Amino acid sequence: MNAISAELSTGVAVRRAVRSGRHAHHTVGAAPPYVQGNVVILPRALAYDFLLYCQRNPKPCPLLAVGDAGDPRLPGLGIDLDIRTDVPRYRVWRDGELVGEPTDIRELWRDDLVAFVLGCSFSFEHALVSAGVPLRHVERGDNVAMFRTSIPTVPAGPFRGPLVVSMRPFRPADAIRAVQITSRFPNVHGAPVHLGDPKAIGIGDLGHPDYGDPIDVLPGEVPVFWACGVTPQAALMAARPPLCITHAPGCMLVTDLLNEQLAAA
Amino acid sequence: MNAISAELSTGVAVRRAVRSGRHAHHTVGAAPPYVQGNVVILPRALAYDFLLYCQRNPKPCPLLAVGDAGDPRLPGLGIDLDIRTDVPRYRVWRDGELVGEPTDIRELWRDDLVAFVLGCSFSFEHALVSAGVPLRHVERGDNVAMFRTSIPTVPAGPFRGPLVVSMRPFRPADAIRAVQITSRFPNVHGAPVHLGDPKAIGIGDLGHPDYGDPIDVLPGEVPVFWACGVTPQAALMAARPPLCITHAPGCMLVTDLLNEQLAAA
Repeated sequence: MNAISAELSTGVAVRRAVRSGRHAHHTVGAAPPYVQGNVVILPRALAYDFLLYCQRNPKPCPLLAVGDAGDPRLPGLGIDLDIRTDVPRYRVWRDGELVGEPTDIRELWRDDLVAFVLGCSFSFEHALVSAGVPLRHVERGDNVAMFRTSIPTVPAGPFRGPLVVSMRPFRPADAIRAVQITSRFPNVHGAPVHLGDPKAIGIGDLGHPDYGDPIDVLPGEVPVFWACGVTPQAALMAARPPLCITHAPGCMLVTDLLNEQLAAA
Repeated sequence: MNAISAELSTGVAVRRAVRSGRHAHHTVGAAPPYVQGNVVILPRALAYDFLLYCQRNPKPCPLLAVGDAGDPRLPGLGIDLDIRTDVPRYRVWRDGELVGEPTDIRELWRDDLVAFVLGCSFSFEHALVSAGVPLRHVERGDNVAMFRTSIPTVPAGPFRGPLVVSMRPFRPADAIRAVQITSRFPNVHGAPVHLGDPKAIGIGDLGHPDYGDPIDVLPGEVPVFWACGVTPQAALMAARPPLCITHAPGCMLVTDLLNEQLAAA
């Protein structure tokens, strides 16, 4: 292990490298046993509806932690954690339009901002790979294929829209194993929402994902679909909040929680 | 099965009997396969902090559903459900003081009221009994023994206070089985929070519960402790909201969800 990878071997080490400016790119593969999270920061005036949206749609929006208004700390995810500095790259949205991609949001922080951290599929992908279930998009260095479905989420205030899913193709025995393994991780999307016929959930063409990279479903494979963290991002953008700050794609918050700590029985 | 018990065999049947005034007492044993819930109704001004308190303390506060402000329906729990009429008996609290126990709250309903329904241990007790794990307090017709602990909950706004637990004594083999079974039900308190030495969680005398009926821990038995729905009730009363409406003890909302639908993998 060289100096840089040793530096990124724990959640706190990644956050310190990020905070000091030594790490300003994606966190794929960083500190693999540690939970990474999607970040959403909203004004308090919208926080209730977003919290309610997450409560009503726990599979696409699995909440790991919510900060107090104006407080950039999230001690449940890491003792020293500061949400203003510890994400490698942010996206700043005003009225639904992307207006910047800073590496630090201390200048933008306000007393009424609330930080939400949501679980992401990196955690269950780590569990799948650890259990010997192959993930072809990971082997190829691709992003997972994601699709908008015909399944509506349950609205809350201005937040609404279709369920977005990620799709991974498996041989049937691996699909069964994947159901078993991901069922243990309800806080990071949990069990699949569908498997088999994509048309049953309104997906016309598996070859053309709405987000991410396409992946072939080979003869003898079954496509398996999980609720995806793009769902709340799409609901947020459609609601056009006056201010919203998220992580930039792939540039996640790395926490001190171990993936295995999220596992249910 | 006589006419009355047939009438109470499903969630919707119980709710109709309650709504029509034919059933105004406790729901213990009513429609046993169906999920029963604790009810909390608060003004919108306090709803965010209470929702956050539940998010931060999911074991004592397992949310099943949250209504829209002013909307008495909870379609996720029952198509025809009306939270103003479908609970056998309510408790109305003003500034933390009990001011009434009506059987209908249509006169009190307001456009800013938000209904919360939380899972309760009836669901996992049903699963334990179904699996042949004996529950002595149920066999004796007693209420479960409950204790305030030295474990603080995570505060949110005005809501804070100690974790309250329920205790059930088991022989070791049954304690292990009880851990396995209740772990499958995270939406109704889930796995125990402690077993064995009560002093480790600040309980001085198992013979004197803070709520409910005492129960002996017999030689060879282990006390097992679960997070309890009295926790949010105590946090609510301590916060003294200007208005709060809850179910009366034992007079729960009976839903159309089956207990088994709440089971994790």
